[in-house]
Amino acid sequence: MGVSRRSMLAGTAAGVLAPVVGFTGTAAAAGPVRRITLYAEALPDGLYGYGLEPGKATIPGPLLEIYEGDTLEIELVNTTDQRLSIHPHGVNYDTASDGAPLNASFNNPRETRTYTWRTRARYEASGGFWMPGSAGYWHYHDHAMGTDHGTGGLARGLYGGLIVRRRGDLLPSKQYTVVFNDMMINHRMAPDTPMFEANLGERVEWICIGHGSLPHTFHLHAHRWADTRTGMLNGASDNAQVVDNKNLDPGSSFGFQVIAGEGVGPGAWMYHCHVQTHSDGGMAGLFLVRNADGSLPAGAQDAIDRFKQHGHTGHDANPDARTHA
Amino acid sequence: MGVSRRSMLAGTAAGVLAPVVGFTGTAAAAGPVRRITLYAEALPDGLYGYGLEPGKATIPGPLLEIYEGDTLEIELVNTTDQRLSIHPHGVNYDTASDGAPLNASFNNPRETRTYTWRTRARYEASGGFWMPGSAGYWHYHDHAMGTDHGTGGLARGLYGGLIVRRRGDLLPSKQYTVVFNDMMINHRMAPDTPMFEANLGERVEWICIGHGSLPHTFHLHAHRWADTRTGMLNGASDNAQVVDNKNLDPGSSFGFQVIAGEGVGPGAWMYHCHVQTHSDGGMAGLFLVRNADGSLPAGAQDAIDRFKQHGHTGHDANPDARTHA
Amino acid sequence: MGVSRRSMLAGTAAGVLAPVVGFTGTAAAAGPVRRITLYAEALPDGLYGYGLEPGKATIPGPLLEIYEGDTLEIELVNTTDQRLSIHPHGVNYDTASDGAPLNASFNNPRETRTYTWRTRARYEASGGFWMPGSAGYWHYHDHAMGTDHGTGGLARGLYGGLIVRRRGDLLPSKQYTVVFNDMMINHRMAPDTPMFEANLGERVEWICIGHGSLPHTFHLHAHRWADTRTGMLNGASDNAQVVDNKNLDPGSSFGFQVIAGEGVGPGAWMYHCHVQTHSDGGMAGLFLVRNADGSLPAGAQDAIDRFKQHGHTGHDANPDARTHA
Repeated sequence: MGVSRRSMLAGTAAGVLAPVVGFTGTAAAAGPVRRITLYAEALPDGLYGYGLEPGKATIPGPLLEIYEGDTLEIELVNTTDQRLSIHPHGVNYDTASDGAPLNASFNNPRETRTYTWRTRARYEASGGFWMPGSAGYWHYHDHAMGTDHGTGGLARGLYGGLIVRRRGDLLPSKQYTVVFNDMMINHRMAPDTPMFEANLGERVEWICIGHGSLPHTFHLHAHRWADTRTGMLNGASDNAQVVDNKNLDPGSSFGFQVIAGEGVGPGAWMYHCHVQTHSDGGMAGLFLVRNADGSLPAGAQDAIDRFKQHGHTGHDANPDARTHA
Repeated sequence: MGVSRRSMLAGTAAGVLAPVVGFTGTAAAAGPVRRITLYAEALPDGLYGYGLEPGKATIPGPLLEIYEGDTLEIELVNTTDQRLSIHPHGVNYDTASDGAPLNASFNNPRETRTYTWRTRARYEASGGFWMPGSAGYWHYHDHAMGTDHGTGGLARGLYGGLIVRRRGDLLPSKQYTVVFNDMMINHRMAPDTPMFEANLGERVEWICIGHGSLPHTFHLHAHRWADTRTGMLNGASDNAQVVDNKNLDPGSSFGFQVIAGEGVGPGAWMYHCHVQTHSDGGMAGLFLVRNADGSLPAGAQDAIDRFKQHGHTGHDANPDARTHA
Repeated sequence: MGVSRRSMLAGTAAGVLAPVVGFTGTAAAAGPVRRITLYAEALPDGLYGYGLEPGKATIPGPLLEIYEGDTLEIELVNTTDQRLSIHPHGVNYDTASDGAPLNASFNNPRETRTYTWRTRARYEASGGFWMPGSAGYWHYHDHAMGTDHGTGGLARGLYGGLIVRRRGDLLPSKQYTVVFNDMMINHRMAPDTPMFEANLGERVEWICIGHGSLPHTFHLHAHRWADTRTGMLNGASDNAQVVDNKNLDPGSSFGFQVIAGEGVGPGAWMYHCHVQTHSDGGMAGLFLVRNADGSLPAGAQDAIDRFKQHGHTGHDANPDARTHA
């Protein structure tokens, strides 16, 4: 698609949405209002993407990141000739920002429209029961192209990651958005799937999102995480299940942080869907953990070369050609 | 089916199984024995349902609700010419109340049979490890019609929700049972799926149940919950994942409470299966949050009118015509 | 297959990997190094298995069990004419022990190769965030036969259970490994699926593993567990969801302990996939809870006899003949 993986992190890398540190507390009091402009654009091969600048649309779209309490105002510029929208998971919005045709919340072709997302912290309801806040690894996607559920937009690339952090959450040095969407990862199939890179010992963050109509399970080699909000435990007695394989079914998302290569060393590690026909069919990619100094570890280039032979025989990259599960 | 949504809540609304407040403690000591009569009846179009009174069977059946420690004795009157049963999830029963033909536990045609369900609180086994109690959002279903696994009964409507509460749990003002069963919600497809209603600010409870042979994910717009027993957190440091989309696969169930329209306002909000072919195919419905005074908010009628155009093209409502995933 | 269910527990029963009690603490300091030899062997009907002794391969392979901190060195003897490997979930390994052709980590035909798995305890990263340890109910499987993802090995029986315990964890008196793999349980279909046996009141442990390309849900009658690392709660205020039905999708695993027949009495209890076409198709088995003295409870023999009539009409036991979900 001619769009590099790095550019999809540009929004965060450029600090556009860099979390503001220093404001603490769990009060529901409104935090700052952040404003961005997103451009929904046509890409080659009938695909579409969201981007933070004109001509920079990517699949997935930019990773958006805010803190609980923040409000995010998104001016969505529809540069296409299609009806489309942006619908978020996990955050608050009124019906005008639902992104669903049901609520007449979408951009007509060439139309610009503002969507407002609000967030809030958890709070005690009564007797030790707390209503959850907005913090989590979420996502956003079109809800208006093709069908009233955005099936056409999802099949053509209109989706991205959204993180709502709690004050005090650990921040990673690198972030990877991984979208399992029908038989594709970030709209690609092996060996063209993203190769995520880190140096040994870096804290890296994975944002995993499921879309489409097929059931999936996300597996990462040689690393694991807790099945919690953060992927970490909150103490020595936390009894959350630890996993290295988790359902990533349509509309679901989760995230976690790992220390790259911790306890296992550098190397080319696979991530893939563990549904066997899916991994064989091309739903696999590489997590390249370099040496601490950034050099390539022994054997890694051989592994990368082998991966370039990964096939996807018998599967068609065109989502319209597939039937549902 | 000529059965209104409200009638399926009649059991609870009428107080038949209203939780008894005031008994506290986590002791395993037996609580009261509650006795009800359920009628399994034939409905139009080859369907079947459970009801608390003759001629009042619904799909789903009545929502049953007890406290940990309670015993529930169900006299099941089979008014039909079919073999059928009632099999619960989450509670204790001996083999005679298993509801499975394996244990010769079923009602022959026209037969009445009593099933006994017991519950108990969690207790410490050893060294800080506690065996779980019965509290949870569960369900019950036929396990004898058609096949020894009740596949025929499930395909024809014999299922319902079951809540076992812990003393001190927060009680909602309204309750919604949502069953994803093959391509249907509560045996209906859009636009005939239930429209659940509440006033802004009401605490409402969702009981979500999966059945059939297809994988599903339940998504609710503009509201979210914690992935815990109650859908809430148990303190500021609780690190459970917060979700607004969760797998609802055959035999699974979960529940949660939300404050209707909290932080998002009134309106017509969608709930739907997030598997795209399923939502497009008719697995969607409305959660209508009215103004606090019960009046219809601006735009809601338009949304309802739009929803009435929701299609389910290409999918057949007859479960027997479908193949499994 | 001529392999008894008991033999698959022989590894543990014989004490080869019996956990060492007495070493406590959560330090990451390395524990003992344990060394075993595994034999990958051809079995009748085109199947393959892992075994702890020559000629004793089983499906699933032996249940391996270690403590956090332990290192396990596995000398894998490939007695077959196929390329194969062993790839674990949940533990640490460098690329040479990945078990994946990507990293040239596999046994050629007739080759012996050593794989090293390391484990470590959770530890505090910063500010109350703890990185998870290795403790969990995991599994291992071939990653090199047929395809680079081991699809051929999984379809032919090369998989088994792996438990990493935390010091102080409760130990069961019996253990059952249950693998849902396409339409089979432990490579069998009803009525030839394993019948797991215990006496009333025994603490028994279930290790549940998903493989293949179909989505599944594991359901156990009359018993339940918490959705945590151990299947138990860690205190009276633990708000983890309690379940008796849980997704068991490809690559996932979980485990739990129950007191056999607690609160429900002895009898023949079913475990099965709750996807209706799967249970009807043969994905069901028996959990036989005997009387406390080991005698058969009333009605159990009748139930066993009925189960022997369980069919699997319309499904083909040959995984190669099936299409994915």
